[in-house]
Amino acid sequence: MSDPLSELRVILAEVSDINRASAVLGWDQETYMPPGGVMARADQLSTLRRIAHTRFTAAETGRLLDEAATITAGMDPDSDDARLVKVTQRDYDLSCKLPAELVAEITRASSMARPAWVEARKTADFSLFAPHLETNIELNRRQADALGYAVHPYDALIDRSEPGMTAAQLRVLFEELKVAIVPLVRAVAAKGDAVDDSCLHGDFAEATQLAFGMDVVKQYGYDTSRGREDLTAHPFCTGFSPNDVRITTRVSRDFLSMALFGTMHESGHAMYEQGVDQALDRTPLCRGASPGVHESQSRLWENLIGRSRPFWQGMYPKLQATFPAQLKGVDGEQFYRAVNKVMPSLIRVEADEVTYNLHILLRYELEMAMLEGTLKAREVPEAWNAKMQEYFGIQPPSVSDGALQDIHWSGFAFAGFAGYTLGNIIGAQLFTKIRSDLPDLDAQITAGEFGRLRGWLQTNLYRHGRKFTPNELLQRITGGPLSTEPWVAYVRAKFGDLYGLAA
Amino acid sequence: MSDPLSELRVILAEVSDINRASAVLGWDQETYMPPGGVMARADQLSTLRRIAHTRFTAAETGRLLDEAATITAGMDPDSDDARLVKVTQRDYDLSCKLPAELVAEITRASSMARPAWVEARKTADFSLFAPHLETNIELNRRQADALGYAVHPYDALIDRSEPGMTAAQLRVLFEELKVAIVPLVRAVAAKGDAVDDSCLHGDFAEATQLAFGMDVVKQYGYDTSRGREDLTAHPFCTGFSPNDVRITTRVSRDFLSMALFGTMHESGHAMYEQGVDQALDRTPLCRGASPGVHESQSRLWENLIGRSRPFWQGMYPKLQATFPAQLKGVDGEQFYRAVNKVMPSLIRVEADEVTYNLHILLRYELEMAMLEGTLKAREVPEAWNAKMQEYFGIQPPSVSDGALQDIHWSGFAFAGFAGYTLGNIIGAQLFTKIRSDLPDLDAQITAGEFGRLRGWLQTNLYRHGRKFTPNELLQRITGGPLSTEPWVAYVRAKFGDLYGLAA
Repeated sequence: MSDPLSELRVILAEVSDINRASAVLGWDQETYMPPGGVMARADQLSTLRRIAHTRFTAAETGRLLDEAATITAGMDPDSDDARLVKVTQRDYDLSCKLPAELVAEITRASSMARPAWVEARKTADFSLFAPHLETNIELNRRQADALGYAVHPYDALIDRSEPGMTAAQLRVLFEELKVAIVPLVRAVAAKGDAVDDSCLHGDFAEATQLAFGMDVVKQYGYDTSRGREDLTAHPFCTGFSPNDVRITTRVSRDFLSMALFGTMHESGHAMYEQGVDQALDRTPLCRGASPGVHESQSRLWENLIGRSRPFWQGMYPKLQATFPAQLKGVDGEQFYRAVNKVMPSLIRVEADEVTYNLHILLRYELEMAMLEGTLKAREVPEAWNAKMQEYFGIQPPSVSDGALQDIHWSGFAFAGFAGYTLGNIIGAQLFTKIRSDLPDLDAQITAGEFGRLRGWLQTNLYRHGRKFTPNELLQRITGGPLSTEPWVAYVRAKFGDLYGLAA
Repeated sequence: MSDPLSELRVILAEVSDINRASAVLGWDQETYMPPGGVMARADQLSTLRRIAHTRFTAAETGRLLDEAATITAGMDPDSDDARLVKVTQRDYDLSCKLPAELVAEITRASSMARPAWVEARKTADFSLFAPHLETNIELNRRQADALGYAVHPYDALIDRSEPGMTAAQLRVLFEELKVAIVPLVRAVAAKGDAVDDSCLHGDFAEATQLAFGMDVVKQYGYDTSRGREDLTAHPFCTGFSPNDVRITTRVSRDFLSMALFGTMHESGHAMYEQGVDQALDRTPLCRGASPGVHESQSRLWENLIGRSRPFWQGMYPKLQATFPAQLKGVDGEQFYRAVNKVMPSLIRVEADEVTYNLHILLRYELEMAMLEGTLKAREVPEAWNAKMQEYFGIQPPSVSDGALQDIHWSGFAFAGFAGYTLGNIIGAQLFTKIRSDLPDLDAQITAGEFGRLRGWLQTNLYRHGRKFTPNELLQRITGGPLSTEPWVAYVRAKFGDLYGLAA
């Protein structure tokens, strides 16, 4: 075999297989693994990751990339081959830039920080976690230094997960969001009684909830011959090929939203992964473009569809027939209002559509300050509470519901939170374009017909996998750059209507 | 790191991790994987197996083994280190003896034979499978040639799975069994009405059956904090470390034995794996000694305990309380008789304790003839039917219930069937020794107290993992060689009593 592209693909397929095996082990760990399996599983994952990393960052990969680039130089730059070489070169450079000792140090630090975070959160004692967060700040700075950046260390971190994004671009986005949301939250809070969500709280048999949720997402288009749903403590989506993409959920007997909207959310991630062109299988292109673009798909099916009036105009009778006693006397419009109640709250993962981005803004600002060295780990709870007061007008009664609520800072790199807000923004931008391309979308949604919407997403987004950066995708699809305007317009219109605010 | 033993252990731990990851993928494939996942899973398993094989058979492993052997030469030959080097050297030699092209050829042939066997079985057309079986015979001969043998090609194949066993040893065993069983089966058949098993057939809710089975095996000592049970088409046991050993079962709503005795059987395999000394973890010693010794443990808990009179004297009231309507009017002695009904039958996996070994004998004799070249693939059905007539006095109405019933010949190496009979024999030998060491065993069994029995197995067998060969284990534990006598005495006594035969 003398063709460097073919040789490169063999290595990438092998690395992909190993990474997918790791993903299966990760799925098993969260779903069915007995408690005794923990230590051996850590060994297995560590071995697989090391083998994949060693294989991918070998000099041979670099040489084949160089040789393949001379071939693809003459091709359509948007062809699978040309994009494969380009994106893989980028991954390769990033992987090689991080010294093995730093990677090992991060793994070690993270495995020590995780139990400290769990204990600190349990005892509401931030001081137990502060030294680990201080280490994490330091390691994030060193990662940024190793990766390199022009302006701000955050640039290096965000560019790695959201290629092409910069801290400056995010700063503008978040500023626009802050200006728009903070007054909206205040206006809604002043009319807090306008929406009653008591119908979501009751006694809903878990199995019935789960079956209903699966019926909904199968109607969305989630293909369960190539996927399945299981129960986990924290919901997620994971894939081992476009033909095996699984979701998980959690269910609360006395709160209808948890499983239902969680399942819709994860199905959005899953349909994206199921839709990647099979020609990209076993390459680094065979997944979503970025965490932000991925989140645009989960949010689209959870919120833009699943919390829309047209959706519940069609679906509510089925839900009411499923829970006739519990939903007696509640009509579709009441239910639509209930699932859209806005309430300044302490916990990010329970936040409504309007306030969610404020939770992210707060974390983004603290991460920037930590990276810049103006905020020490031990000062984080105080800074957190000050921003909660400023943006939400509330205070966490305990640091466990404040600066200790998220797992992210105990291990993951900074800049991960930004993907959630990018997802909301990108989702709304895509949806505006979808509406103009599919003028009778609302009627289709009410009729429970999602084929054309999914076809649009398949054609314009899913199939491309990771060929294009988030900015490139937006340019190709909407003809313009990332913009907060569609999302701001969407929440103003929707929640202005729901809460009877002046336009 | 200059210590060759430590360096060797690093390689073996890595290989072990990869093999365990493969086992997790295999478990998932049989339990929860959606249908779409098949192709990608084959890629993942093939990649992991190739990496593990390459790593293990590298020249570096051979060099470290040589260096380590000079160190362990001065040690107690039964120490963990000395045995590790010895057993690993054996595995290494066997792995290196098989040329990569032959291994690849076997994999390819097997992947083509499997669907042909499925189709042939479905249409009861042996001619669809015959060419694949002919290839398999040829590949088994070539494997035997590559591995090397002194007397008979079967020696090479049996020695690989049951180290130290020879075709000559097996020939004697099977001859002794034939002499003992064939007349016993005839005598029992003459009193066929003496045992009524109709109480096993009824309407038994699946979940209740499964819960009862798990209660039993937890009482046996299967640790579900380090294991779990799931449903599959064919029951199996698989382990990813001594602390994560899982079993599967299948359940029939109208036949009580299937899930109950299947679960007992797999729990025997699982307790063995759970009991391997943790000091052997992540080495080639960290599993059962051989398929035959493994089967001795599954058969012990399924048959020697689970189908014994003392067991049901203690357990039957609980079972009757679990299924009061279905077992109304059936007493414990009737139930004990029902689960021990002997009946010459067509299907190996449904056979009773007495006739089971005849099914294996038949396959063993056909494998010997195929290897010797005196039986062609296309002649197998006729030879099969002749032996069915000779040993059982019955004829399969269709080749699907005859020579096509087992999956083994579509892929696995020959000599695999022998492990089942070795398991029965070894189990009975161990049990004789256990009875002499624990004189009040029956009382313990009736009381549902299995701690001392399990402790005996832990001390004498489980903890050693793969340190000793089957023959070595028998010598260490019973002071003598492999012998059919205890098993023959056991079935003669038990079934003589049940069927009222003259002693």
